[in-house]
Amino acid sequence: GRYALVVAGDIAVYATGNARPTGGAGAVAMLVGPNAPLIFERGLRGTHMQHAYDFYKPDMVSEYPVVDGKLSIQCYLSALDRCYTVYRNKIHAQWQKEGTDRHFTLNDFGFMIFHSPYCKLVQKSVARLLLNDFLGDQNLETANGVFSGLEAFRDVKLEDTYFDRDVEKAFMKASAELFNQKTKASLLVSNQNGNMYTTSVYGCLASLLAQYSPEQLTGQRISVFSYGSGFAATLYSIRVTQDDTPGSALDKITASLSDLKTRLDSRKCVAPDVFAENMKIRQETHNLANYIPQCSVEDLFEGTWYLVCVDEKHRRTYARRPLMGDGPLEAGVEVVHPGTVCEQIPSPAKKVPRIPAATESEGVTVAISNGEH
Amino acid sequence: GRYALVVAGDIAVYATGNARPTGGAGAVAMLVGPNAPLIFERGLRGTHMQHAYDFYKPDMVSEYPVVDGKLSIQCYLSALDRCYTVYRNKIHAQWQKEGTDRHFTLNDFGFMIFHSPYCKLVQKSVARLLLNDFLGDQNLETANGVFSGLEAFRDVKLEDTYFDRDVEKAFMKASAELFNQKTKASLLVSNQNGNMYTTSVYGCLASLLAQYSPEQLTGQRISVFSYGSGFAATLYSIRVTQDDTPGSALDKITASLSDLKTRLDSRKCVAPDVFAENMKIRQETHNLANYIPQCSVEDLFEGTWYLVCVDEKHRRTYARRPLMGDGPLEAGVEVVHPGTVCEQIPSPAKKVPRIPAATESEGVTVAISNGEH
Repeated sequence: GRYALVVAGDIAVYATGNARPTGGAGAVAMLVGPNAPLIFERGLRGTHMQHAYDFYKPDMVSEYPVVDGKLSIQCYLSALDRCYTVYRNKIHAQWQKEGTDRHFTLNDFGFMIFHSPYCKLVQKSVARLLLNDFLGDQNLETANGVFSGLEAFRDVKLEDTYFDRDVEKAFMKASAELFNQKTKASLLVSNQNGNMYTTSVYGCLASLLAQYSPEQLTGQRISVFSYGSGFAATLYSIRVTQDDTPGSALDKITASLSDLKTRLDSRKCVAPDVFAENMKIRQETHNLANYIPQCSVEDLFEGTWYLVCVDEKHRRTYARRPLMGDGPLEAGVEVVHPGTVCEQIPSPAKKVPRIPAATESEGVTVAISNGEH
Repeated sequence: GRYALVVAGDIAVYATGNARPTGGAGAVAMLVGPNAPLIFERGLRGTHMQHAYDFYKPDMVSEYPVVDGKLSIQCYLSALDRCYTVYRNKIHAQWQKEGTDRHFTLNDFGFMIFHSPYCKLVQKSVARLLLNDFLGDQNLETANGVFSGLEAFRDVKLEDTYFDRDVEKAFMKASAELFNQKTKASLLVSNQNGNMYTTSVYGCLASLLAQYSPEQLTGQRISVFSYGSGFAATLYSIRVTQDDTPGSALDKITASLSDLKTRLDSRKCVAPDVFAENMKIRQETHNLANYIPQCSVEDLFEGTWYLVCVDEKHRRTYARRPLMGDGPLEAGVEVVHPGTVCEQIPSPAKKVPRIPAATESEGVTVAISNGEH
């Protein structure tokens, strides 16, 4: 009967250059507990970890990562190969125990979602998984169907093909329909919002739930490939509940996400040079002490928390944009501060705080104890 | 039947000044699983979390923390109060269910160990817990026994006494015997090795296991107060197994730690100015790229891993001091490198690697997959 709350969030920013447009930011909060509409399939987790300098942040002064582009693709694709191999071995073992003797293939996934540094890599990943299916079963039909015309690749080795353009092209083509049916819709947030690192694959999950109806989702197996640089990767699967009736948990979770596209569309579009200027300000100020951001807060969504100031000891003070739906008692800016308020708080002016501000003597504002709440 | 491996390690370094001598470094590895000699007492965990800038590292360029000394003491002691209150409430509830109706006191702990920024704070913490016992039971005997002469403090409030010298002095005196019996031995590593942050309280546990026999430990309840700045704290308890026979798990774990003092004593003692010089080198070089440490590795313990070089992309290469007990096939320096070896490797010269070096094309050396090993 206990619940776990999982929160993942990140900001992906890059130095000027090719990678900059792939940046993004996002956060996700997930409740894990019994009677969920999305159910982990236990015993089917394929994990692979390996030491690599594919993407890392060694320069403490900079927010920007160091990326070894070629190595990072190789790491990602090789991790996908390894995780899928382990996953298939495990499900084959489960099936054999149940008396079923057949090959697992991508057809056994209803949807496939992937950690998405950029959308093209996800499309390549679907092709990669199809290559795994192809090489894993010597008896596959190549005269007709999805593998037709691929006989020439019968003897390629996975580890030789990370950058083999012929293999990639052939399997991208062969997997195009699979991608369109099982993966494309999951890239809504990645496509519109860029990379979000830890949040990435859950943004894909949210994209699916936002665009398919409970009737379309019910009973489906969703594969989830999660990848973190350095690196650690897992392929696992989620089974969608069989209960798609109105008012069911599945109905509620899809309804709660039905405005996802509207929310993405409600963002303000700015020209690249405005974005570049904002990034430049961030780059120059993100480590400063004794600093008061001068940017306008008028463009922030209602309810957004923002940085008011950083004092001389790097202690940060935040405030919140009012929630328009609030009544008079709820309206206003909430301030969380480290004991002393910075000398200047930008508009909007402080009204009635939602959370009582801490007294000076305590110097603290947020407290959680177990066993008492 | 599954095991978890918990590894905690940290390096505590401070800028020149009062805090510098409290620094230290350490790591602990713990196996968590069934049939353990040390058993978590389930349902008796008191946790308190609160937002505070007591100790933090806002300056990305520096390894040194910013510490608000007074606030950090207040945070630590108030967390101890809150956690002990929750812990007692929980054990009272357990006891009532079992039909036992009495007050929990420190006498119900066989040993008490604490996160140890410095040893004096731990002594104050024992006094603080005794103050909690005192204020929590209006019917305590003050004519004789441990609380004699403390009537004057009957009406003090916990939150008013973090820096009350009269209260502190009186309860330090009253708790001196408790401290000597239940806590002092646990400070061996903290006293000899300084603060170790995440490892701190487990260093205390190791100190107990190293200095008491299985017969002295068996059946005892050990309280563990863990604290992390920012802050999050938990008071929980460990029950030592009843099986103290030769060859038992308890016998093995104490035997494995019996040379703890010898190992601490085997370290090389250097003058403060040598330490200061080493710290200065570290301060000037710890963020450098394209850097080869020039320090001698001759003083490192056998088997110690050390940094060989940092290349121009901040990729780090490590090697290992030989293990003297090794045979010819095992002897030698092991090198973990990021695909390309730095141009210069200090002595001792590379011999036979223990872990096969990665091929250049892989650029990786350590890999873990589940379901296959």
